[in-house]
Amino acid sequence: MTALQRQGQAAKAASYALATAGTAKKNEALEAIARVLTERRDLWLAANAEDVAAARESGMAPAMLDRLTLTEERIAGIVEGVRQVVALPDPIGRADKTETRPNGLLISRRRVPLGVIAIIFEARPNVTVDAAALCLKSGNACILRGGREAIRSNRCVSALMREALASAGLPEDCVSLVQDTDRETARELMHLDQYVDVLIPRGGAGLIRAVAQDASVPVIRTGEGVCHLYVDSEADLDMAARVLQNAKCSRPSVCNAVECVLVHRDIAADFWRRALPLLEQVELRADPAAREILGERAVPAEESDWDAEYDDYILAVRTVDCLEEAIQFINRHGTQHSESILTTNYFKAQRFLAAVDAAAVYVNASTRFTDGGEFGLGAEIGISTQKMHARGPMGLEELTSCKYVVYGEGQVR
Amino acid sequence: MTALQRQGQAAKAASYALATAGTAKKNEALEAIARVLTERRDLWLAANAEDVAAARESGMAPAMLDRLTLTEERIAGIVEGVRQVVALPDPIGRADKTETRPNGLLISRRRVPLGVIAIIFEARPNVTVDAAALCLKSGNACILRGGREAIRSNRCVSALMREALASAGLPEDCVSLVQDTDRETARELMHLDQYVDVLIPRGGAGLIRAVAQDASVPVIRTGEGVCHLYVDSEADLDMAARVLQNAKCSRPSVCNAVECVLVHRDIAADFWRRALPLLEQVELRADPAAREILGERAVPAEESDWDAEYDDYILAVRTVDCLEEAIQFINRHGTQHSESILTTNYFKAQRFLAAVDAAAVYVNASTRFTDGGEFGLGAEIGISTQKMHARGPMGLEELTSCKYVVYGEGQVR
Repeated sequence: MTALQRQGQAAKAASYALATAGTAKKNEALEAIARVLTERRDLWLAANAEDVAAARESGMAPAMLDRLTLTEERIAGIVEGVRQVVALPDPIGRADKTETRPNGLLISRRRVPLGVIAIIFEARPNVTVDAAALCLKSGNACILRGGREAIRSNRCVSALMREALASAGLPEDCVSLVQDTDRETARELMHLDQYVDVLIPRGGAGLIRAVAQDASVPVIRTGEGVCHLYVDSEADLDMAARVLQNAKCSRPSVCNAVECVLVHRDIAADFWRRALPLLEQVELRADPAAREILGERAVPAEESDWDAEYDDYILAVRTVDCLEEAIQFINRHGTQHSESILTTNYFKAQRFLAAVDAAAVYVNASTRFTDGGEFGLGAEIGISTQKMHARGPMGLEELTSCKYVVYGEGQVR
Repeated sequence: MTALQRQGQAAKAASYALATAGTAKKNEALEAIARVLTERRDLWLAANAEDVAAARESGMAPAMLDRLTLTEERIAGIVEGVRQVVALPDPIGRADKTETRPNGLLISRRRVPLGVIAIIFEARPNVTVDAAALCLKSGNACILRGGREAIRSNRCVSALMREALASAGLPEDCVSLVQDTDRETARELMHLDQYVDVLIPRGGAGLIRAVAQDASVPVIRTGEGVCHLYVDSEADLDMAARVLQNAKCSRPSVCNAVECVLVHRDIAADFWRRALPLLEQVELRADPAAREILGERAVPAEESDWDAEYDDYILAVRTVDCLEEAIQFINRHGTQHSESILTTNYFKAQRFLAAVDAAAVYVNASTRFTDGGEFGLGAEIGISTQKMHARGPMGLEELTSCKYVVYGEGQVR
């Protein structure tokens, strides 16, 4: 048995204890985690400082370095996040489809944990705690595999969380960290079918695609966001310009930011007159029709621009002749994340909402709202862009499965 | 582009039309299918007769031959099944989580089809129509790949169904049959990620495991059933004997039949005195402790018996010392299908229901009730034994996904 197999076996055993632990016990463990991370934050900060120093020495880019770095304030935010998870309602044990059948059987469908959730993520030490807290509250054991660059931070914080779990009377193997950060171990984790119920990769599109391609355990794909805004011929163009500015510029690095705007030919000139002043820091990559209007302000779009997730101040621009062309383009080039139409026409709005195939479809609003908090689900572990199991922001309920519970009195069939 | 890729592309295009077709139109198509299968059943019977003749010539076993054979009566049953699907409520468009957020966004989670469902099945021509009807009603296009032995029957019935679809004004590519029945084409279908949203294998455990292992498209595993009955020290032993007889003998070839009985040591002799007369046609494979009681009536169980899905008049018998041993044994050797405890003790019943990890858990009832009809879901496409997406009997709702629909007035974040 390999080290990872032993870890998987221990997580599975812990998951059975956690599945029947009850809300009070799980909240107690989360409170213990919040406490130990606060009281012993110096340990965590020191380990993180070593990670940061090593990363700086190896020439990590400043933006990446910033994401790796912990501060007192960031730790306080992480701890606050754990306390918010304590406050969320526990989905486990809720039941629906409860009925007494004609033969007297009392049947009910009860929410249960998925079991063991593996999470592969990059060098953001906050993910370690966020993910563990959501898994714990939803009754799932988790196996965390973070990036090499954050290994000292992750070893420290996972040890602290395990200590907190034990102090609250839960198995410490409810949370465990994969100690090796090499690719072979990651690949082994993707094939640990016997012990891992679900694998959730969190990070860039490259990581997610690689994991989905290679894994034999079930994967939930999250956070791939090639999102579109379609400005219809009957849109309120001032509103459209403001929404585009927000959807592109308020935080271009996140997955719900818009990467491509589709503009109806009839209002394109009017629209761009209003929109250009709001997009000063944005590079535009446009099709020939749009370049006739945008002139020097745009560079020619290449084929690859229609499928690009820039995560940056870059926007693809395409001219369309009608709503149906926009819908077809989005269904072909989108990643089924978030798509929005700007229109004042009722029938076009309803048609777009019905026909566009995505986790979230909007009329007259920014795509930036696709988020667990904004949707009222509380904390989220990611935005699912697949259709199986969960779609859109994944809160606690999306980390559960169900079982049918049947009470009988000797019934036979 | 291969023939299968073209078929996938056509199915995807049809799925978009079907997704917004509305309940009345879908029911009209189902009624047209029921009508054409009735009116032109002679065509289907003739094609089937050729399949049966070829299969008999190649030496197919009588039980298999019987499953392949269509009769007037069986076709009437299949048509009746289609009409039952017409009568089921349409899950598409139902919404939940509807709320107006503080910023005025009106958010709702709406049921939508999965898209394109591929189904790989063996030589049972009824599955072709059952599966197509359930997919159609839930707004999904389907790609059917049946066994080689039924290819003439399947070609005929799929052509009839496509004709009915067209007559009702829906794209005929909502239903299509894979024309080649070789392994390479099946493997290509398992990797048609671009067009297939979900793959559901229907058939024996061997088929399902092979598909789940090989496929890169998402798979829903159904129908693997190593089910247990645990007879507790405090059971009503007459009830336990009757339930065991039903769970094993009423239809041993189906997935919800019991394959292994766990008997508490303290009541084993009493229990077997009552149970043996009811299990006359059953071969018992027992552990040493049970053999002391069963004597000549049982053969020794081998290690492989604890994981065997016999689908036959064979039963593995194991003696346990306590409830916890039974729970652990079931969680290790079960396939998470259906598990039942016989006990009069309230606390043991509750503990078993909570701790056993399966799609359906029972107290004092036969496992044979795990079925879409028995659970009140209407027709089912299979019993899911996985935790992702759907668990237990899969009705129409389990063939859907969701999308968040957001109505705004220019909101930005």
